[in-house]
Amino acid sequence: MTVTIKPAQTLARRWQMTGFGRDNLTLAETPIPSPGPGEVLVRVSAVSLNYRDKLVIENGMGFDLAFPFTPASDMAGTVEAVGDGAGRFRPGDRVISTFSPGWIDGKLAIGNARTLPYRTLGGSHPGVLSDYVSFPEDWFVAAPASLDDGEASTLPCAGLTAWFALVECGRLHAGQTVVVQGTGGVALFGLQIARAHGAEVIVTSGSAAKLDRASALGADHGVDRTAEDWAEAVWRLTGDRGADQILELAGGANLGKSLQAVAVGAHIAVIGVLDGFEISGPASPLLLKTPTISGISVGHRRALEDLVRAIDRTGIKPVIDRRYGFAELPAALDHLERGPFGKIVIDLV
Amino acid sequence: MTVTIKPAQTLARRWQMTGFGRDNLTLAETPIPSPGPGEVLVRVSAVSLNYRDKLVIENGMGFDLAFPFTPASDMAGTVEAVGDGAGRFRPGDRVISTFSPGWIDGKLAIGNARTLPYRTLGGSHPGVLSDYVSFPEDWFVAAPASLDDGEASTLPCAGLTAWFALVECGRLHAGQTVVVQGTGGVALFGLQIARAHGAEVIVTSGSAAKLDRASALGADHGVDRTAEDWAEAVWRLTGDRGADQILELAGGANLGKSLQAVAVGAHIAVIGVLDGFEISGPASPLLLKTPTISGISVGHRRALEDLVRAIDRTGIKPVIDRRYGFAELPAALDHLERGPFGKIVIDLV
Amino acid sequence: MTVTIKPAQTLARRWQMTGFGRDNLTLAETPIPSPGPGEVLVRVSAVSLNYRDKLVIENGMGFDLAFPFTPASDMAGTVEAVGDGAGRFRPGDRVISTFSPGWIDGKLAIGNARTLPYRTLGGSHPGVLSDYVSFPEDWFVAAPASLDDGEASTLPCAGLTAWFALVECGRLHAGQTVVVQGTGGVALFGLQIARAHGAEVIVTSGSAAKLDRASALGADHGVDRTAEDWAEAVWRLTGDRGADQILELAGGANLGKSLQAVAVGAHIAVIGVLDGFEISGPASPLLLKTPTISGISVGHRRALEDLVRAIDRTGIKPVIDRRYGFAELPAALDHLERGPFGKIVIDLV
Amino acid sequence: MTVTIKPAQTLARRWQMTGFGRDNLTLAETPIPSPGPGEVLVRVSAVSLNYRDKLVIENGMGFDLAFPFTPASDMAGTVEAVGDGAGRFRPGDRVISTFSPGWIDGKLAIGNARTLPYRTLGGSHPGVLSDYVSFPEDWFVAAPASLDDGEASTLPCAGLTAWFALVECGRLHAGQTVVVQGTGGVALFGLQIARAHGAEVIVTSGSAAKLDRASALGADHGVDRTAEDWAEAVWRLTGDRGADQILELAGGANLGKSLQAVAVGAHIAVIGVLDGFEISGPASPLLLKTPTISGISVGHRRALEDLVRAIDRTGIKPVIDRRYGFAELPAALDHLERGPFGKIVIDLV
Repeated sequence: MTVTIKPAQTLARRWQMTGFGRDNLTLAETPIPSPGPGEVLVRVSAVSLNYRDKLVIENGMGFDLAFPFTPASDMAGTVEAVGDGAGRFRPGDRVISTFSPGWIDGKLAIGNARTLPYRTLGGSHPGVLSDYVSFPEDWFVAAPASLDDGEASTLPCAGLTAWFALVECGRLHAGQTVVVQGTGGVALFGLQIARAHGAEVIVTSGSAAKLDRASALGADHGVDRTAEDWAEAVWRLTGDRGADQILELAGGANLGKSLQAVAVGAHIAVIGVLDGFEISGPASPLLLKTPTISGISVGHRRALEDLVRAIDRTGIKPVIDRRYGFAELPAALDHLERGPFGKIVIDLV
Repeated sequence: MTVTIKPAQTLARRWQMTGFGRDNLTLAETPIPSPGPGEVLVRVSAVSLNYRDKLVIENGMGFDLAFPFTPASDMAGTVEAVGDGAGRFRPGDRVISTFSPGWIDGKLAIGNARTLPYRTLGGSHPGVLSDYVSFPEDWFVAAPASLDDGEASTLPCAGLTAWFALVECGRLHAGQTVVVQGTGGVALFGLQIARAHGAEVIVTSGSAAKLDRASALGADHGVDRTAEDWAEAVWRLTGDRGADQILELAGGANLGKSLQAVAVGAHIAVIGVLDGFEISGPASPLLLKTPTISGISVGHRRALEDLVRAIDRTGIKPVIDRRYGFAELPAALDHLERGPFGKIVIDLV
Repeated sequence: MTVTIKPAQTLARRWQMTGFGRDNLTLAETPIPSPGPGEVLVRVSAVSLNYRDKLVIENGMGFDLAFPFTPASDMAGTVEAVGDGAGRFRPGDRVISTFSPGWIDGKLAIGNARTLPYRTLGGSHPGVLSDYVSFPEDWFVAAPASLDDGEASTLPCAGLTAWFALVECGRLHAGQTVVVQGTGGVALFGLQIARAHGAEVIVTSGSAAKLDRASALGADHGVDRTAEDWAEAVWRLTGDRGADQILELAGGANLGKSLQAVAVGAHIAVIGVLDGFEISGPASPLLLKTPTISGISVGHRRALEDLVRAIDRTGIKPVIDRRYGFAELPAALDHLERGPFGKIVIDLV
Repeated sequence: MTVTIKPAQTLARRWQMTGFGRDNLTLAETPIPSPGPGEVLVRVSAVSLNYRDKLVIENGMGFDLAFPFTPASDMAGTVEAVGDGAGRFRPGDRVISTFSPGWIDGKLAIGNARTLPYRTLGGSHPGVLSDYVSFPEDWFVAAPASLDDGEASTLPCAGLTAWFALVECGRLHAGQTVVVQGTGGVALFGLQIARAHGAEVIVTSGSAAKLDRASALGADHGVDRTAEDWAEAVWRLTGDRGADQILELAGGANLGKSLQAVAVGAHIAVIGVLDGFEISGPASPLLLKTPTISGISVGHRRALEDLVRAIDRTGIKPVIDRRYGFAELPAALDHLERGPFGKIVIDLV
């Protein structure tokens, strides 16, 4: 069932790195690829940036990049052509990418104890900051009907990370109290997903203005972590009960605060390490309150499909701080550096 | 259905603390209690000591002890009399205690985020170093038929901790590789329980002699952690696959080693903190290998009943380093200080 | 910590059976009980009826009733006095009953393979159709602040059954499709709980009028099972995907329809047996779609506490078809016979 | 990384159906295939037969077979050549097939509520009764080092089914009581896997001779179901506690017996339907004992890899009733008809 639709253009724009550092980032034109066996050719209409894209551009994050290398992992677009033997999608289908290609369900089937598993688009695989990508059809998921492509492009990494932590690992349900740290992309998805399940949300931030915006999105409580000990604030806000789930996005010694704030038998999802790569905390609350700590590495395709259904069902709209044109990547990276409220999106069309 | 059997004696020996420190530990005689409503009176025949009993004796471990206070939590004995309304046991039944009285199944139902849950025998409740104890019948479990009382007394804390970590939290099954750290009571139960489920066991220790003894008990591999990096040894022994479960008994910075040694999607049970109360480790293996870390606080009664059935079924014999007479408590505490190979038991009869 | 508040009255009204059948149901007055050790005395303000109460009244349902026997299991009220040693509640606290007293969390700890576990209020224990009840404090849960006592009284059986099936056993999350059969108490709680978690709800019924009322409550789709094959309707409404969860309330051969309607790897909760006690269905969809079938027997106290929090958080208001005065029990039983839309409540104050 | 090793022969023997019925089964010779992109060419050395292979030969079992069609799903052999882009295996690696190709982990990702998922080798895909097969590399798993190829060929269907039911769905652990019905391939694997995890095993059979053989394999109890009610026997043998897990292999009304025999809160895995495709049973024990019933459709690749490790670790040797030569397929099918004790294997080399 091979279907080939000849695209009108023959060249695709593509951001590519010829080396590390912003200075080596250029906008090039290369031939539009043809879908190989089992692949689909997708016209990319929006790309969502993650902080890690900035790191890959600056230092490669340890990936063995083949220059010229195109960064970024999260996209939405439309299937233009279908390779030999591919049958999951048809031309015209709107799709989004998967962050960890090939992780379909269950446990990660790559890597081992020594060699950490981390095969992602825009890392071990080429990225998506390009008018066209051609990847195996298994690497895509149908886009939600209720979102435009810019919004849909935020799901593969930030959206799925929050969903996987709260729903897949944390068994989110109504009546739980969820703490999200900060107001970045994962945090705000966490807020929205928790609210959509009838949970109470406490947001911590160092900015009163951002707490106001989080409140407008439905956060029940905002805690200015520069003004008070946020773990004690969680005690206060929950009548000492503590939080049923915490999205630990700061890392470092902040894990210790999460261990203080967590309820008995509850769940901490370790996701981010803004405060430091060496996490630490006191053993007593871990031993005596018996929480579970999950390390989160985005998530699998089945959960992304669940998230897409949930998005369509609940009407959640991803929070996009600002959308940039394709040529404005440098400005978008500057914005990423400053710490956006939610997501940054690059529109290609 | 009140049944009262008059014990022949009227006085019970009892070790009691009149203050903190070994000097304030005395052997007293007090009247044998009568079982209150819902209670059973149990003739204690053996008590198993845990390292925490030493700490309670020395400094109270933060418990609000009412002096004179009898320490120790783990015992085996025989029901002598049954209080009004109690029906779980009959006189003559052999029973063991539960470490966390009232924790029947599921989540801990005590404590909160601020006030850590830790209601144990020999801590928030009186202990068991006494000829007789009278407790609510719900605090006991039928003893395994295949063990003598000294052996059976080791199950409530050390046995259940290892079982709860591996089976209840870790879903132990044949073919897994389990790392146990050291050769104390929990570690050796971990070794035996893992072996009884068809798992492979790696023991780490600082003593070659203890590794030899662990090998005789069925350990597949012994790693002298003073001679090599134990996490790298796990890589070597598993062909880089890593361990499916790790009983983290050292705590402190050793958690970082466990994060290195653990397999993708696997399980670390944090149990002990011999190396330090501030646990720490690198975030990368936690984020990328996505293990689950469980804080373990012994376990609930249903799991102890499961363990008793498993003991009777598999023929596991707890490893007792040495058994002491009731009057020899000080020598037993010295032994505890030195670090026994397995458990220390006090025989009362 | 004994607190005794002398109630102003000394007699309590009480519905009691002196034998089987409605003719043996009388309204009596008996002395207000005093709370025994570990008990609380509760002033009952509302009782919610279940179909089983009608069966107990008519034939005892196999329970060994001690006449005079007071039926019914679900109540809300206010603690008036606290017995010796009881500390969970204080006078003035609003509470609701638990359907299976003593089932705190985890697995049922009563009964065995031969002797089915079924120890309930208004069955193996005395019931609650009385101005006052005195029960062990562990048998109560704090009432939700957002409900009046009549509404709160519907949670212990109908509310918890739906919650336990969908949330505790079925891991409900946003984007799932849930089928509820009929418009009785459990079904409508299922509808509301599913909606509060962002799920899609299909209601089946034999009454177009009831489907309209379910639609007004938020049901996404109504299927008149007298007009079409409801399993095929589920295929149609889900694009053949099937239902993620089905509350099987009819039993009998209807289980076969549920097996047809269920999605791959999804969940069927068997709760009711209106259509027959012998359940049956084809093996092929069970073997090939690999669903899980859970037998549901209401649920444990921890889940009821979770439900109470969820109710307060989400603002769910239980659907009460009609409220009756205490003396109107016979009319309420007639209504139960006809099949109410939601719940029937008896107000005592 | 294409590696091509030219096999010495150029023709492969192959059993093929040119229509339904034994009469249309012929031994043919066809060219040895070349591995396509992502495929591996495997020299088949042993094939294990399942009862369904007999049904496929006789009536196709509803599969849309393209004649000439080669039946059978389970094989062991050696990789001879590796297609373009394939990297999981190298020539010389010993492998076994997966029964449901492409089911890697988690939920089945094929089929839906209406169209039952059932894509298997020797069904929707060509089978393995051939000297050579060339399939996508993802369809194979490394063979256990401790088994010869004939033994290893029994794992993909019968071995994995028992493992998936008991370990993956049922959380098997030491001390559980497991009932296996009959002495076919799945049943005996269930017996061996349960024993390797320290569980107690009750085997039911209509043949005293087979019960003796099961006893020699380690069954703790044998119940002659023609001589007594097997559910009552389970009550007797467990002191009324019931079975923690039941491999329901008979189906039909036997499910009712399993519901009687199962312990409170325990697990029934429905696997076989020898007694009838319409399963049925009383609702009361399902509702009141709250067991979970899982439909089992063999299992995923990750679980097969777990099983392989467990086999190597525990030394389990699959029970093969008889091994036949490649040309003896008709005799092997006759044996299958009679009901073997364990598995039937065809040796190709």
